[in-house]
Amino acid sequence: MIKAGIFGATGYTGMELVRLLQRHPAAEIIFATSQSHAGKTLRDVFPAAPPLQLVKGENAPLSEIDVAFLCLPHAAAAETAIVALHAGARVIDLSADFRLRDAVAYTQWYAHDHPAPHLLGEAVYGLTEVCRAALPGARLVANPGCYPTSVLLALRPLLLSGVPIAGPIIADSKSGVSGAGRSPTLTTHFVEVADNFSPYKIGRAHRHLPEMEQAIGQWRPDAPPLLFSPHLLPVPRGILSTIYVTLGTDATESELRRLYETTYDGEPFVRVLPAGELATLAHANYTNRCVMALTLVGRTLILTSAIDNLIKGAAGQAVQNMNAMFGCAETVGLE
Amino acid sequence: MIKAGIFGATGYTGMELVRLLQRHPAAEIIFATSQSHAGKTLRDVFPAAPPLQLVKGENAPLSEIDVAFLCLPHAAAAETAIVALHAGARVIDLSADFRLRDAVAYTQWYAHDHPAPHLLGEAVYGLTEVCRAALPGARLVANPGCYPTSVLLALRPLLLSGVPIAGPIIADSKSGVSGAGRSPTLTTHFVEVADNFSPYKIGRAHRHLPEMEQAIGQWRPDAPPLLFSPHLLPVPRGILSTIYVTLGTDATESELRRLYETTYDGEPFVRVLPAGELATLAHANYTNRCVMALTLVGRTLILTSAIDNLIKGAAGQAVQNMNAMFGCAETVGLE
Amino acid sequence: MIKAGIFGATGYTGMELVRLLQRHPAAEIIFATSQSHAGKTLRDVFPAAPPLQLVKGENAPLSEIDVAFLCLPHAAAAETAIVALHAGARVIDLSADFRLRDAVAYTQWYAHDHPAPHLLGEAVYGLTEVCRAALPGARLVANPGCYPTSVLLALRPLLLSGVPIAGPIIADSKSGVSGAGRSPTLTTHFVEVADNFSPYKIGRAHRHLPEMEQAIGQWRPDAPPLLFSPHLLPVPRGILSTIYVTLGTDATESELRRLYETTYDGEPFVRVLPAGELATLAHANYTNRCVMALTLVGRTLILTSAIDNLIKGAAGQAVQNMNAMFGCAETVGLE
Amino acid sequence: MIKAGIFGATGYTGMELVRLLQRHPAAEIIFATSQSHAGKTLRDVFPAAPPLQLVKGENAPLSEIDVAFLCLPHAAAAETAIVALHAGARVIDLSADFRLRDAVAYTQWYAHDHPAPHLLGEAVYGLTEVCRAALPGARLVANPGCYPTSVLLALRPLLLSGVPIAGPIIADSKSGVSGAGRSPTLTTHFVEVADNFSPYKIGRAHRHLPEMEQAIGQWRPDAPPLLFSPHLLPVPRGILSTIYVTLGTDATESELRRLYETTYDGEPFVRVLPAGELATLAHANYTNRCVMALTLVGRTLILTSAIDNLIKGAAGQAVQNMNAMFGCAETVGLE
Repeated sequence: MIKAGIFGATGYTGMELVRLLQRHPAAEIIFATSQSHAGKTLRDVFPAAPPLQLVKGENAPLSEIDVAFLCLPHAAAAETAIVALHAGARVIDLSADFRLRDAVAYTQWYAHDHPAPHLLGEAVYGLTEVCRAALPGARLVANPGCYPTSVLLALRPLLLSGVPIAGPIIADSKSGVSGAGRSPTLTTHFVEVADNFSPYKIGRAHRHLPEMEQAIGQWRPDAPPLLFSPHLLPVPRGILSTIYVTLGTDATESELRRLYETTYDGEPFVRVLPAGELATLAHANYTNRCVMALTLVGRTLILTSAIDNLIKGAAGQAVQNMNAMFGCAETVGLE
Repeated sequence: MIKAGIFGATGYTGMELVRLLQRHPAAEIIFATSQSHAGKTLRDVFPAAPPLQLVKGENAPLSEIDVAFLCLPHAAAAETAIVALHAGARVIDLSADFRLRDAVAYTQWYAHDHPAPHLLGEAVYGLTEVCRAALPGARLVANPGCYPTSVLLALRPLLLSGVPIAGPIIADSKSGVSGAGRSPTLTTHFVEVADNFSPYKIGRAHRHLPEMEQAIGQWRPDAPPLLFSPHLLPVPRGILSTIYVTLGTDATESELRRLYETTYDGEPFVRVLPAGELATLAHANYTNRCVMALTLVGRTLILTSAIDNLIKGAAGQAVQNMNAMFGCAETVGLE
Repeated sequence: MIKAGIFGATGYTGMELVRLLQRHPAAEIIFATSQSHAGKTLRDVFPAAPPLQLVKGENAPLSEIDVAFLCLPHAAAAETAIVALHAGARVIDLSADFRLRDAVAYTQWYAHDHPAPHLLGEAVYGLTEVCRAALPGARLVANPGCYPTSVLLALRPLLLSGVPIAGPIIADSKSGVSGAGRSPTLTTHFVEVADNFSPYKIGRAHRHLPEMEQAIGQWRPDAPPLLFSPHLLPVPRGILSTIYVTLGTDATESELRRLYETTYDGEPFVRVLPAGELATLAHANYTNRCVMALTLVGRTLILTSAIDNLIKGAAGQAVQNMNAMFGCAETVGLE
Repeated sequence: MIKAGIFGATGYTGMELVRLLQRHPAAEIIFATSQSHAGKTLRDVFPAAPPLQLVKGENAPLSEIDVAFLCLPHAAAAETAIVALHAGARVIDLSADFRLRDAVAYTQWYAHDHPAPHLLGEAVYGLTEVCRAALPGARLVANPGCYPTSVLLALRPLLLSGVPIAGPIIADSKSGVSGAGRSPTLTTHFVEVADNFSPYKIGRAHRHLPEMEQAIGQWRPDAPPLLFSPHLLPVPRGILSTIYVTLGTDATESELRRLYETTYDGEPFVRVLPAGELATLAHANYTNRCVMALTLVGRTLILTSAIDNLIKGAAGQAVQNMNAMFGCAETVGLE
């Protein structure tokens, strides 16, 4: 049994992780922390949750676990990572702290110094389909952001291919409200969100932009800049990204689809839709799948890519990474 | 022109009141206050609102207005009422401060002493269809609560009739989220509310209970106790109350409906539905109407009663009261 | 392995059943039928479903299964039950066809003659917590309606106790839209449902009334009549029933709660909430649990009872029944 | 008084038109037609509507009206237009029948021959801000589509300017469900739409594409092709278009904003947001406004543009057109 500790169990991501680990046949939850609800059980916070005891992070028995999942705010996550690694646990960080390799970029985007720059070098960027070879040996995994997961899995086959790209890459993304976290704000007030639909931080202003460009730059060093437009959808969960890439050459939709099918052949959690279908939230919600479709119009490839932001975009991919780190089949506990 | 000042314009009720008064042909907004947004305009707070300047309450030019609308938290409302009345303005209070006539009961339900008990005697309980004779001479009107408006208008014809009532009166009410106010809390977080439905403070625990029983007691001094079960609906606005009254005698549905039709004949804002129809939110939302239906089953009368909580349940009824206070037709600005 | 066939797999209930049986470790789906989508796969109908082949009902290999689940319209279900039983399969009918024991009552409520009155005698009314002793030997199980499941489990401990009841029993129930089925109608049109809330068939008009009164009459032969008021909630799934029972004697809330806790002690799928909590959809959705709470006000007991209409109210309870029929632990595949 | 007849009053657009005309001080509804509900009143169809009598289209007293509004399916609209014009009425057609000037293109996109090609030449494309000079003399106005209204008003200042454009113009649009009409289909079933988000007919497949390209081609004959990706939002009403245009030259956001502000200076129903703000549904819903914002990133201009699809995107713009046709101020009845 993989012994797991969850830091920050009372947010939406932490809660989803508890749900997944509780049904995981090869993992067991040793502790779950909460700063504001310590002393209560998870059921006091989520009415359908199991009565799992919540402890303060500083009281978590780190020596008893194999792996720590960090569902904490950035900076707090890095500080906990230092302690957990020191205690001998492996770490899967669901915050943004170890996603950017460059501490200077981190400071620019997150507005404070990185608490553990010495760990950036060894952190594996945990887009499982890409990094799985590195996972068995990894001590520290940076679980990708939700938007990046939906965008990067859709762009990767094209970027790794020789097909030339002209003009900017545009990702017009739409996310459910759980992506904004559980802290009450006017932005997440029911009356403000219901019946509404809002873009925010569009262009090159959202923190997930440098994370995506870092991966894009590895796959296609001369890639054009990314434009990223997130929008808030009046749904609890799910992300759909509609991605526009203008190619620098003629191509056919079927040969591009073949490229994608080949790339993702055998992937249990990536589904490339057949011609004529488009990805929707209903394809992906409540699953660990990224579902994508290709539509070529002239020289512009339109990719639609859907994930459940709390599963493939967070807790599910974290479990998929854990599986690979500990020698389980990636699908265990996720189907 | 009726010169109006609005205290607390940036909540949902205040905003709705601005909307109604701006289109009112015989009223004009002299000022609108906000403690947290003073210096900005209402458009900075609600994107579709007019660019009305917001001032601090203490800077409001009270001497320039005929009537002050108080969309403030309780206690703050009563304190402002004292000042506004002293400055010569008439007051329509949309808070709970002047609804209960008994300062002791107020203290029990609202957990602090009443700031202006000397004004309780003159306050008119502003269920317009009931109190309109008192409105032309009123200095201070206590605008009814949203739940009470939906329940009391539905119960009143029965209570005023000679039909005997056996057993408790049960009001099973369901309200949209704007009734919970605009301050962000976990209770109003989109992810907690969407796809959910929750009872709260059921039985005899909600502050609107004594307000309803006070009116019921005037209409039927020996009425049985009220059971009141509010529920939070995943919609922005609207209240539906399903009310059960077991009669102490045989009756027919059609004679009861006739009683209701007679009572509300000519009322512009009360609609009694024909046999076979039931009230829904869609009957009432975005109108100042209370729409009700009667279903008799054995000796139990089931009333369904719908209002828009922000209009007939708050700002609309306040304007209806203003119209009656200042000699306008009640419907002006409300159709 | 229990070999199962599903008739009517492309409705919401059928789809949920597929999902549950696919993850069930001791069951396997032999076939799934659809009259309108035969020849396609279930994935063509539900984008996240597995690519299960759909066949016409008349082509279903009945001889290969141990149990047939009928997710068919009433009448069609009874006709299929005859054939399936004849072929040697056991039958779990999720339609209303075998819920009422009285063929005359069936004709009154369902407006046509019962297709298989000779089977009514042996049909077990499958409220699992009540009927489980009869399940191992049952050939034919009538899976309860969704509203009845939420109401009956909440009423049963009280009805079986000696506590006297005065006045009508009132069940004010609210259901998500999947309860109305997947056939498109104006009633289920998104624009008609969203932001709305509607009572329908209130009093003694809904077909689930005789089903509930039949069970109530067994538990308390002199019980007063039931008033049942269903309402349509703007959510995809979930039922909350708020039930009012006026007792004929004084009681305390804690002794009533003890009665409930004792009755349901050890039940894996019934949860009685502690004092001060109320049942909500969030307690029950996506689980096979019925979650209930008790609030006593004077002599009126208010029960709040929540289920997921598609799981405990349909497919989940069907699997729970299958488990008991075939000697599995009831919880297998349902946690 | 302008005497108006409404053909097709029981769809969402027709209903909205009734609402607007009933409060219009200079217009009066002479008749409202419905093929399926003739003999009933509009209140029988929409519970909050006035009890307006519905007649069959063939019984409409065309000679008594000044203007006919056609809220009919395409083809049926053109046939009614012929009759109404012949009877001496002016016509505002809210269907697609007179939007495309080219009968051949109409046949390609709408899959049948145009019923009135001889009228295409005189039809005015009724984007009021563009065509108002032609309205006083117009007999026949083609009210624009909802998506085109949101996209074209946002693109027009740029297209009419000398700023060069490089690469495709991309309109990623999201619409509420009322845009899909009131006929029940699986696509508009509450359970399919709620919690979901779906692209459809993306690229160059939607019928609004040729309508938009026709206008674009007039403003900028050498404009690059348009890519148009509509998505279905789980809200009743509202459209947000996020539009990407890559410029062929350097520019500053503030000079582009100035261009937009200058173009729309004095327009009562177009609002250009200040720097730092983005358009949302909440800016436009329940108003006749098109609200737009500009964000320049490198050489790509991102326009966000919001309208209420039923008002500025249909019935409101139709009334605005009527006002201009009959010499009223455009804002009458629309504020």
